[in-house]
Amino acid sequence: MTDRKDMTLTSSGFYVSQEAPISCENPTPTPVAPAPDILRCAYMELVVTDLKKSRDFYVDVLGLTVTEEDENAVYLRSLEEFIHHNLVLRQGPVAAVAAFSYRVRTPEDLDKAVAFFTELGCRVERNENGYNKGIGDSVRVTDPLGFPYEFFHEVKHVERLAWRYDLYTPGALVRLDHFNQVTPDVPRATKYMQDLGFRVTEDIQDEDGVVYASWMRRKPTVHDTAMTGGDGPRMHHVAFSTHEKHNILAICDKLGALRMSDRIERGPGRHGVSNAFYLYLRDPDGHRVEIYTQDYYTGDPDNPVVTWDVHDNQRRDWWGNPVVPSWYTDASLVLDLDGNPQPVQKRDEPSEMSVTIGADGFSYTRQADDEEMPEYKQGEYKLGHQL
Amino acid sequence: MTDRKDMTLTSSGFYVSQEAPISCENPTPTPVAPAPDILRCAYMELVVTDLKKSRDFYVDVLGLTVTEEDENAVYLRSLEEFIHHNLVLRQGPVAAVAAFSYRVRTPEDLDKAVAFFTELGCRVERNENGYNKGIGDSVRVTDPLGFPYEFFHEVKHVERLAWRYDLYTPGALVRLDHFNQVTPDVPRATKYMQDLGFRVTEDIQDEDGVVYASWMRRKPTVHDTAMTGGDGPRMHHVAFSTHEKHNILAICDKLGALRMSDRIERGPGRHGVSNAFYLYLRDPDGHRVEIYTQDYYTGDPDNPVVTWDVHDNQRRDWWGNPVVPSWYTDASLVLDLDGNPQPVQKRDEPSEMSVTIGADGFSYTRQADDEEMPEYKQGEYKLGHQL
Amino acid sequence: MTDRKDMTLTSSGFYVSQEAPISCENPTPTPVAPAPDILRCAYMELVVTDLKKSRDFYVDVLGLTVTEEDENAVYLRSLEEFIHHNLVLRQGPVAAVAAFSYRVRTPEDLDKAVAFFTELGCRVERNENGYNKGIGDSVRVTDPLGFPYEFFHEVKHVERLAWRYDLYTPGALVRLDHFNQVTPDVPRATKYMQDLGFRVTEDIQDEDGVVYASWMRRKPTVHDTAMTGGDGPRMHHVAFSTHEKHNILAICDKLGALRMSDRIERGPGRHGVSNAFYLYLRDPDGHRVEIYTQDYYTGDPDNPVVTWDVHDNQRRDWWGNPVVPSWYTDASLVLDLDGNPQPVQKRDEPSEMSVTIGADGFSYTRQADDEEMPEYKQGEYKLGHQL
Amino acid sequence: MTDRKDMTLTSSGFYVSQEAPISCENPTPTPVAPAPDILRCAYMELVVTDLKKSRDFYVDVLGLTVTEEDENAVYLRSLEEFIHHNLVLRQGPVAAVAAFSYRVRTPEDLDKAVAFFTELGCRVERNENGYNKGIGDSVRVTDPLGFPYEFFHEVKHVERLAWRYDLYTPGALVRLDHFNQVTPDVPRATKYMQDLGFRVTEDIQDEDGVVYASWMRRKPTVHDTAMTGGDGPRMHHVAFSTHEKHNILAICDKLGALRMSDRIERGPGRHGVSNAFYLYLRDPDGHRVEIYTQDYYTGDPDNPVVTWDVHDNQRRDWWGNPVVPSWYTDASLVLDLDGNPQPVQKRDEPSEMSVTIGADGFSYTRQADDEEMPEYKQGEYKLGHQL
Repeated sequence: MTDRKDMTLTSSGFYVSQEAPISCENPTPTPVAPAPDILRCAYMELVVTDLKKSRDFYVDVLGLTVTEEDENAVYLRSLEEFIHHNLVLRQGPVAAVAAFSYRVRTPEDLDKAVAFFTELGCRVERNENGYNKGIGDSVRVTDPLGFPYEFFHEVKHVERLAWRYDLYTPGALVRLDHFNQVTPDVPRATKYMQDLGFRVTEDIQDEDGVVYASWMRRKPTVHDTAMTGGDGPRMHHVAFSTHEKHNILAICDKLGALRMSDRIERGPGRHGVSNAFYLYLRDPDGHRVEIYTQDYYTGDPDNPVVTWDVHDNQRRDWWGNPVVPSWYTDASLVLDLDGNPQPVQKRDEPSEMSVTIGADGFSYTRQADDEEMPEYKQGEYKLGHQL
Repeated sequence: MTDRKDMTLTSSGFYVSQEAPISCENPTPTPVAPAPDILRCAYMELVVTDLKKSRDFYVDVLGLTVTEEDENAVYLRSLEEFIHHNLVLRQGPVAAVAAFSYRVRTPEDLDKAVAFFTELGCRVERNENGYNKGIGDSVRVTDPLGFPYEFFHEVKHVERLAWRYDLYTPGALVRLDHFNQVTPDVPRATKYMQDLGFRVTEDIQDEDGVVYASWMRRKPTVHDTAMTGGDGPRMHHVAFSTHEKHNILAICDKLGALRMSDRIERGPGRHGVSNAFYLYLRDPDGHRVEIYTQDYYTGDPDNPVVTWDVHDNQRRDWWGNPVVPSWYTDASLVLDLDGNPQPVQKRDEPSEMSVTIGADGFSYTRQADDEEMPEYKQGEYKLGHQL
Repeated sequence: MTDRKDMTLTSSGFYVSQEAPISCENPTPTPVAPAPDILRCAYMELVVTDLKKSRDFYVDVLGLTVTEEDENAVYLRSLEEFIHHNLVLRQGPVAAVAAFSYRVRTPEDLDKAVAFFTELGCRVERNENGYNKGIGDSVRVTDPLGFPYEFFHEVKHVERLAWRYDLYTPGALVRLDHFNQVTPDVPRATKYMQDLGFRVTEDIQDEDGVVYASWMRRKPTVHDTAMTGGDGPRMHHVAFSTHEKHNILAICDKLGALRMSDRIERGPGRHGVSNAFYLYLRDPDGHRVEIYTQDYYTGDPDNPVVTWDVHDNQRRDWWGNPVVPSWYTDASLVLDLDGNPQPVQKRDEPSEMSVTIGADGFSYTRQADDEEMPEYKQGEYKLGHQL
Repeated sequence: MTDRKDMTLTSSGFYVSQEAPISCENPTPTPVAPAPDILRCAYMELVVTDLKKSRDFYVDVLGLTVTEEDENAVYLRSLEEFIHHNLVLRQGPVAAVAAFSYRVRTPEDLDKAVAFFTELGCRVERNENGYNKGIGDSVRVTDPLGFPYEFFHEVKHVERLAWRYDLYTPGALVRLDHFNQVTPDVPRATKYMQDLGFRVTEDIQDEDGVVYASWMRRKPTVHDTAMTGGDGPRMHHVAFSTHEKHNILAICDKLGALRMSDRIERGPGRHGVSNAFYLYLRDPDGHRVEIYTQDYYTGDPDNPVVTWDVHDNQRRDWWGNPVVPSWYTDASLVLDLDGNPQPVQKRDEPSEMSVTIGADGFSYTRQADDEEMPEYKQGEYKLGHQL
């Protein structure tokens, strides 16, 4: 834990420190059992209420590849993937997330997962045949935060279509990049994820040390998942990568052409956190999908942790474009291991939206007082009413 | 003039027609004198209140090339330009536009300009030595709409730096593309500009035939200037082109890095009108600058005129992202030939902002009723309060 | 005509002058009859020997849009086009070009075309119903250089698909940009084209004034057609535009994925001449197609003419990459008005290939002697044998 | 080791297998001592013969950031790097490589490195203060292949400039990606590197099992280093990454503008191996630098190994563009731990150049016989003499 006074202010306006500057007063106890060796976020299982409409969105609009499908489910992958799928769409009565699934290094890591989560007092199940097609022996848990986490190693290999440029669309999705979860207590969530082997790469805090969000990785990108402070457990978004920024713009252009521009919730833009280029969409059930490209390498064990001031209005969008309120408030339900939606608990600490937008909050572009402010008041138009 | 019932609805949701579908009930009379043969918009003379700050913005931030400068003025050009300048920054007491300057085909076209505007009853001046460095014989008028228009042919040639990639920045500006003017009565303005030889390429109307804006060209792009309905005469923006979309994103990224993101007023995005990719900035005096790329060829005399419904929420941004109110309301003063600001007259007809945003107006993404609207209400997040 | 001593050497290594620096000793006489007012190159009619294979190439691989087709012909257009077609593929016994077709400003310009070419002693035909579907009243001539030129004004309008991003491929072709013709005597060809109303924008010469190629425009781009010195009359290539450079790279990637990379003849690269980004492909009959993007505006009447030294090895490729010999030697036959291939006449003057490549020729990267040449001899690897 | 008959032929024309299909008949014995845990290739120390000229190339042309410099050395880093440097230029009498330097996970891994290479019979040195500024305790060895390998953990952190878009050039280099080494016996080299903890991702072989090159990674990209069959030990190239393909094109454009296009040795193009977009440059001493972008994630332990047929002419360039001979033959000397150039040993097995180019070799685009070959003989122009 690093105090802000011990952080280094960079020339870009955020802070760096060596250790994740997040302290937790009521942590889940660190298990004695070693954590499984997680490789990466591998796939999400989404429950959708109209399978055909969801398939149209993910296949016909976004261009994901169908590995396999049946009446109840569609198994989709990105163009550079060689495992069976990165996304499962499953028909169900309530739109929700059935699993955040991670691949582990060895079959033995599943035993470790069982021991680790059992020691944490979590409900743990195991299915040698896997919970989804193409996946072998799997462990599912309801984790200490209430999320349905899955771990697997065995998986059917399929052809990596990276070289099949004849199949690429202008907005081609090439990788699953990360998940993003909503949880009330970010420090507590972060501490548990660190126990599970994740390393914090960036976070958002205020001067009092309230943590609004944290980003954590196993593979050496900015994240495999992030914890966003809010009422939870809920799923904030699942993110796919493109090669270049124009691919993301092409998705917007296509949605316009299809007169589906209202699926664009936020962006495109440049994140402050992660430095990636982004776009947020909403699928037919309202599940949020991010399209993402070009974050940075984080694989060294002493990779500097980046801390953003919650009032820095470039933290969420480097260009200072406003975050739409729905992006803060909306998220998807998650299921327990019986398939029932988890109850949602309120966040007690202040919300990022309330402390940064409108009469209750404030944001700044430059940290210093700007006496050079011109008469037309810079930035005012960026804060104007939209209605 | 084409009635909407005679227009053709395209598969993209807008209409096309052969003749500009704009009628004017109180036109300026068409002069008997022939119009000068205008080649293109060539440069704008901007009065700025702090020359050094403006120079920093246009040279150090945006990367325009200084052709020449002195204590009172800086002459700037884009990388593909071979005439002396595309922008003059002149120190002055009030931020305003001193001239919208067009190049004409021959020296004789200046005589035509004198006759044309004299017949219109406008104040007309001529300066054989030009009003700015690098420019020869010039005619300046206060046009029937109150704008300071300049025409010239003689100009000093300078090196076209198009091949000097060692001078390019990531956001390199390669051409002046167009002007945009605010005027209360768009049909009247359009009719006069047609008399001056301009051809309408696109416009925005409502079902009652109220015209909110029109785009007009001499060179075969979507426009050399546009008429935006509002209190005027005022200057809405001046636009420079980049080669590709990533160049525009790079300007945003750089403004973020310089902690000047509050200079970004709107965008980046894809226009419906013009189909171009865009970004709107505000300079240190609040003058609006557009960065623009990739509209289409319009040089055939029967180029289809595109008419957008004012309620189509993809007309201004193809992705349906909202237009910030300041973009509708703010604009720069323009000067008369004595250098005094022109008085601003109110627009009588409804404003585009009032008929499309908020409680007073409405917009649609799809024209048909969408009974498939999901429970979370598509589009609601796009219309949420920003404060 | 400008002597090289009167040209201005630019900082980029080429020369500029005001008037096309090309003199012709045996010109075709300038007609008294005025030239038709040509708008732009509009379409090419290509005879192909296997219509299905050609259709596969232009539609399935390159993504042109089929406006109409029948057993004998396919009518194709680019995404931003509103006239019926930019390319006609017609089944025939010998691969050749049946027409280089230009659109003129008014119907009356066809009468001018008839008079102009009749005065030149050319064979002239006219067909009120057009020679191709979608085209009305048309004039066809065998021009003084032996090329089948067509002129038309009337044309069926079709929907401009510019906004239909759902139809775009990663390598989307958005416009027809230009033709390129092979002819033995470039100065003579250039003089006749100037009489026809074209203006030279760039050329390649040696110090003795031998002209190897010239580029000429009607619309304000670098060219509507170019004259390449060589055995002719033959067609060198037809060029389509993309929006950005990555679109061209995507075409290469797709050809690789389809195991059709041998259709890539030259490039991709950056031209010296025109400053555009380019790629040359060969269609199933060997017809050459260029994919092209981002040249510059040339619409001012005093647009500087650029002259390249034939020994400047960046003239054809700004990166100094070698031109493959087939690009110099291969070209398509053209037909007379009876549909028979025109005989090909030898070029008497030196060929660009012979004076620049191998033992017989030389090229330079820097004009000055470079005493700083390192021991491994810069550039040697760029000139190594490929076999 | 996988036989080709057990490999899976993909729809893209190459093979995949689970285990690296490379067998070695005379391996270096696998040490009993465990290998150090290598994180990634971290920097190269290059000896240059004219420090100023090299600095001009890497700083002024390529835009690397100077962390620190003195009379004898310049320490450079890429924009996303947080360790002291990725490249050291050191003035010396003979152009060569002084160190291929890898970062290890912990300080203790240096002890492992000492034990590992000592057991291999290599010369091993250690310097607690590091061999270069900014680097702490370091181990240097002459490895079994004759290369100067360095390992370190301690390093001075510097500011990661990823967000400093005001410092970006159009061709911004953001990461060090990999090394590439020339060695006579690729299977033997690969086996030793596997013992050192590297995993093969791709290779090039012929039907007889001759291995021409192999790619190996620690971080989850296609490689941290590659072994290229040829006379060695020599350094083939060091590679830096850009974000997008246009950044690489911008470097070519800039070299053209500076009349330094003869520094471009090969490309730009798309690799078959790695699927990355590439460009090869030669620095003032002839050291080869690759600019590289967009390979794929390889971090799963069962990541499919890709095997290319040496006769597949898309293996080195996915577009089938020819490889210039110098790219096969030229490479940089490497130094022993006393700073003397290592003697170069001949490769006994056939060279990739000899088996694929010209009279002695052959290549194919499509594996099947192509009876559809048109009369102009597809591909012939791609193989034509360049001189």
